[in-house]
Amino acid sequence: MLSSKFRFFQLSLSLSSSSPKPPKNAIFPQIVAIRARIRSQMGSPAYTTSSRLLFRQLFEKDSSTYTYLLADTSHPDKPALLVDPVDKTVDRDISLVKELGLKLVYAINTHVHADHVTGSGLLKSKVPGVKSIISKASNAKADLFVEPGDKIVFGDLFLEVRATPGHTVGCVTYVTGDGPNQPQPRMAFTGDTLLIRGCGRTDFQGGSSEQLYKSVHSQIFSLPKDTLIYPAHDYKGFSVSTVGEEMQYNPRLTKDEETFKNIMANLNLSYPKMIDIAVPANMVCGLQDVESKAL
Amino acid sequence: MLSSKFRFFQLSLSLSSSSPKPPKNAIFPQIVAIRARIRSQMGSPAYTTSSRLLFRQLFEKDSSTYTYLLADTSHPDKPALLVDPVDKTVDRDISLVKELGLKLVYAINTHVHADHVTGSGLLKSKVPGVKSIISKASNAKADLFVEPGDKIVFGDLFLEVRATPGHTVGCVTYVTGDGPNQPQPRMAFTGDTLLIRGCGRTDFQGGSSEQLYKSVHSQIFSLPKDTLIYPAHDYKGFSVSTVGEEMQYNPRLTKDEETFKNIMANLNLSYPKMIDIAVPANMVCGLQDVESKAL
Repeated sequence: MLSSKFRFFQLSLSLSSSSPKPPKNAIFPQIVAIRARIRSQMGSPAYTTSSRLLFRQLFEKDSSTYTYLLADTSHPDKPALLVDPVDKTVDRDISLVKELGLKLVYAINTHVHADHVTGSGLLKSKVPGVKSIISKASNAKADLFVEPGDKIVFGDLFLEVRATPGHTVGCVTYVTGDGPNQPQPRMAFTGDTLLIRGCGRTDFQGGSSEQLYKSVHSQIFSLPKDTLIYPAHDYKGFSVSTVGEEMQYNPRLTKDEETFKNIMANLNLSYPKMIDIAVPANMVCGLQDVESKAL
Repeated sequence: MLSSKFRFFQLSLSLSSSSPKPPKNAIFPQIVAIRARIRSQMGSPAYTTSSRLLFRQLFEKDSSTYTYLLADTSHPDKPALLVDPVDKTVDRDISLVKELGLKLVYAINTHVHADHVTGSGLLKSKVPGVKSIISKASNAKADLFVEPGDKIVFGDLFLEVRATPGHTVGCVTYVTGDGPNQPQPRMAFTGDTLLIRGCGRTDFQGGSSEQLYKSVHSQIFSLPKDTLIYPAHDYKGFSVSTVGEEMQYNPRLTKDEETFKNIMANLNLSYPKMIDIAVPANMVCGLQDVESKAL
């Protein structure tokens, strides 16, 4: 009977919490050499995350784009960055950054988007000091250009840059570090290279299905299996996946390379409706309207 | 110059990870009494989360509804529950549950929704053994009814039930436990009672602005400030907030009670377009089409 009464049973204990405190700052950043090579992955306990990281996933409904806010809240400046901001939602993002008491330092793009205009330009015009970042391989304009192995440092946290061309020629994936005090499990911001149970199209902007396949397998599937996958889009309402899940269930990337190339060659997708507006704007990091001012 | 080359500088250290391991299972559940009272909040280190909890936030775009998947992956059965499933996305949710190797045991609703049909009925018809849960105060049909102070146990994790009427007469908020091995910070699934920088309307289904105000202040704002707020909807692309943030920035709930009641009395919202379909269906937990079979 559906109408029957029900009670849940569980021993009620009053033990004091034995959850571990996060470690104190164990790394003292110093200005030293660089172009750090991507280090081999160290084993690390899963499911604890850095006490320093503030993380927010934000969604823009028209283009189904995810923007990510990351900040080091233990650093006195609370430096923050946005990955793949969208022009339409810049005011929302600025308001959130302000309410959380953060200092926005970087507006980062995974690639030159074809389906929406980046928020980088508007952010630069509205928040003094923000620097836009994109890969050197994209050939787009920005304040700062990154190459594989570079680290984008914010406070005592950082993102490492991995080249993952295929959706576009300049696509990169940003991955949180694997050192002490860095978030565990690691987080990979894959742009359109690897989507949840999918991947970006490869028929525009220097795209190549062969390159995308190699990028995912060599640069993303080589990460620890519990690495969290945060893509630039989702169209089915998923918010996150893991490397392990995609290695097992991605309907395209689990195939062999030839089958994958055939799948991508026969998607019969329509012409991207925003591409003729978005790409020219994004090649100048969204500064098409404010270029003279911002430059 | 935007075209200038840039390098990021950071000391590259190879220290072994000092991240803390999550505690071993410190609680051995036993079948004992219950109607556990909501315990006073213990201080607990923020930012670590239970190693047991698998958590996924899922989105249904038409009604901007969030569905939440929670599971205890350390338990041999990997028992899972869905909070506020939507009929349209049931197949997606079932597929994900299957891929993650979970056993779905509960389909839980925070209240009788007026804007979409719950997925509870379809889940029951498609996944053997799933029990639907709603508050007794809702007067809706379900397999199991909960009252304030009840615990919904899945594996060694649980949700506690808090009565938060106001949007509807039967609204409840489900909050993860505060004991050992439970997720830290705590997570509150607030339904439409408390939204991110907003709240549900109070002009239908036994709604009351006075009750909603009291519910939020006594049952949600009394939680630790780092408690994560996961609402049933978001219309601006936010995915999560905290008690502390809403206490400081919610444009309605930060007002005094009289001002709040005036705000709610003058929203001039249109008649909910789905209410005449959704409420009758949700009063029978989405079993309107499969009632004879499922009962």
